[in-house]
Amino acid sequence: MPVLDPTADAADLTRAICDVPSVSGDEALLADAIEAAARTAPHLEVQRHGDAVVARTHLGRATRVVIAGHIDTVPINGNVPTRLEGDEIVGRGTVDMKAGVAVQLRLAVEIAEPVPDVTWIWYDHEEVSDDLNGLNRLLRERPDLLEADFAILGEPTAAGIEGGCNGNLRAEIRTFGRRAHAARGWAGVNAIHLAAPILDVLAAYEPRQVEVDGLVYREQLNAVGISGGVAGNVIPDECMVHVNHRFAPSRSAEEAVAHIRELFEGYDVRIVDLAQGARPGLDVPVARAFVDAVGAEPRPKFGWTDVARFAALGVPAVNYGPGDPMLAHADDERVPIAQIHAVEAGLRAWLTGA
Amino acid sequence: MPVLDPTADAADLTRAICDVPSVSGDEALLADAIEAAARTAPHLEVQRHGDAVVARTHLGRATRVVIAGHIDTVPINGNVPTRLEGDEIVGRGTVDMKAGVAVQLRLAVEIAEPVPDVTWIWYDHEEVSDDLNGLNRLLRERPDLLEADFAILGEPTAAGIEGGCNGNLRAEIRTFGRRAHAARGWAGVNAIHLAAPILDVLAAYEPRQVEVDGLVYREQLNAVGISGGVAGNVIPDECMVHVNHRFAPSRSAEEAVAHIRELFEGYDVRIVDLAQGARPGLDVPVARAFVDAVGAEPRPKFGWTDVARFAALGVPAVNYGPGDPMLAHADDERVPIAQIHAVEAGLRAWLTGA
Repeated sequence: MPVLDPTADAADLTRAICDVPSVSGDEALLADAIEAAARTAPHLEVQRHGDAVVARTHLGRATRVVIAGHIDTVPINGNVPTRLEGDEIVGRGTVDMKAGVAVQLRLAVEIAEPVPDVTWIWYDHEEVSDDLNGLNRLLRERPDLLEADFAILGEPTAAGIEGGCNGNLRAEIRTFGRRAHAARGWAGVNAIHLAAPILDVLAAYEPRQVEVDGLVYREQLNAVGISGGVAGNVIPDECMVHVNHRFAPSRSAEEAVAHIRELFEGYDVRIVDLAQGARPGLDVPVARAFVDAVGAEPRPKFGWTDVARFAALGVPAVNYGPGDPMLAHADDERVPIAQIHAVEAGLRAWLTGA
Repeated sequence: MPVLDPTADAADLTRAICDVPSVSGDEALLADAIEAAARTAPHLEVQRHGDAVVARTHLGRATRVVIAGHIDTVPINGNVPTRLEGDEIVGRGTVDMKAGVAVQLRLAVEIAEPVPDVTWIWYDHEEVSDDLNGLNRLLRERPDLLEADFAILGEPTAAGIEGGCNGNLRAEIRTFGRRAHAARGWAGVNAIHLAAPILDVLAAYEPRQVEVDGLVYREQLNAVGISGGVAGNVIPDECMVHVNHRFAPSRSAEEAVAHIRELFEGYDVRIVDLAQGARPGLDVPVARAFVDAVGAEPRPKFGWTDVARFAALGVPAVNYGPGDPMLAHADDERVPIAQIHAVEAGLRAWLTGA
């Protein structure tokens, strides 16, 4: 088992954590190492659930916060072990999101008496399907462990605070025609031609910008796929446009579905993925205290993240972590060491009331 | 080797020929049997070229005609051996085009002194790519064998005369955008949305009907395929619309290309298949004599067939054979016996001057 030193500099700890491969489904070794590191802190009660590690303080504070991060990564592509390039650490997981995990692990062990009680969670299977997601598993099996007044996920935000997230909907929109030989096309009905108005709607669509709790969310409507065709000499009888809609957290999932069905009325519309957004929730006092301590101007999060699972529990949640989110999953994933230290300082200031 | 009796009733001979499987590339056994049957006629000079059989009369007539048919079929799908259903023969090849081959083989052996000299050709690899096509191979290696004043292909026409054929063009039309995460779509350019005007052009296109040598050809412009998309959360950077254009034989291949490039100006247009059409050529005396003898009103052929190879040689050519062309390649391919006998009677009347 690799040994992690939670008292090491957070940048060194980031590299050590990245250098233990933990592609989704293969997190056990890293979970073991994190569990062992957490158990070095007598102020933490440590539990293991599958490959999720939960470490809690029990100081009887009036407020409890969850600070969580996932420990899995997307597949490695020749980018582990990490290397230093100037003032950046380069390699798989540096951005998404082992630098965040390193900061969390260091502070969990370091801060014996945080201002709020803290539930630290490091979990598995975030990069794969919903039913495998470790946080989702805890939500199903041990919802009591997620009870809190506020939650922070260490997803990359370039050390800024990103509140809530847009909802996410995917739909397959189909047209149906009738096959015929292309030499006698008048005997058929061309399903690809029937899809022209669908693309027209998409191309002309003007997405809204919606203010929610003081943050402005940009919505999106995009074709992310299109397919149709039988053979080079056949009039196609089916065409499918795969549509992705990102909708502001003030809109419910049901309202988003209704909007899509209205836009594409008369077409065969199948909803294939649907996830409600999350309001930023920055109006609760503990969230305000966090924002003040960190000293960063909150921005909206556009992508869907696990903060929405907390929002669904009624727990306001934000993203706060080192690394440029545009580099998540990129083969040249890299995190500036300064951002690691900035997030560490921000969390420490808040948790210690310094 | 299966033995074919060329003096049998043409319907029986059709069944016998269909019951010798000859999917493209596997025609040798059937070619052997046809060659042997043709060699029973002392008035024919028989040659073998690969799996093509050429049988010629040498009567010193002023006029020579080619009467040809391909002996290969598309793959069998549980529909060989043939069976009788009422007054139809059911099975692979009955329509495309072994009934035509049977009629031709019977008449080649039967008619020792046709009015014009006849070059009978039965060839391989018609259902696959151009470079394998047996007629094309003869054209390259023995163009002298195709010299004629008129040509008849036994492709299915439901015993009617179908003159010439439309040209055929396929093009891939592409749009290019820029990838981005679908949560931040404004950072990208959606190539599928850029394809909307291409589908609009296709959906609104009104194909011409063009009279050529007295026959009216219907043109066609169709999307036969469309593809694009990277993943459900990525703005796609490329979309391809696969377009098929059938153009009247009065339009040259170059003119058809220019038409497509003009319709889709500003897009990336790649021509991936291009075949000139064939004028019906029904204005030459030998063709008129054929039409008069058969007593059928000529119609235009919309699909591209090997008649165009003769047209390219300056030899007028028509299609004339039993079977509904809409059933070619269908798994319930079936030919009415009456059409076999009708085509047999039509060819016999013309060739014998009866």
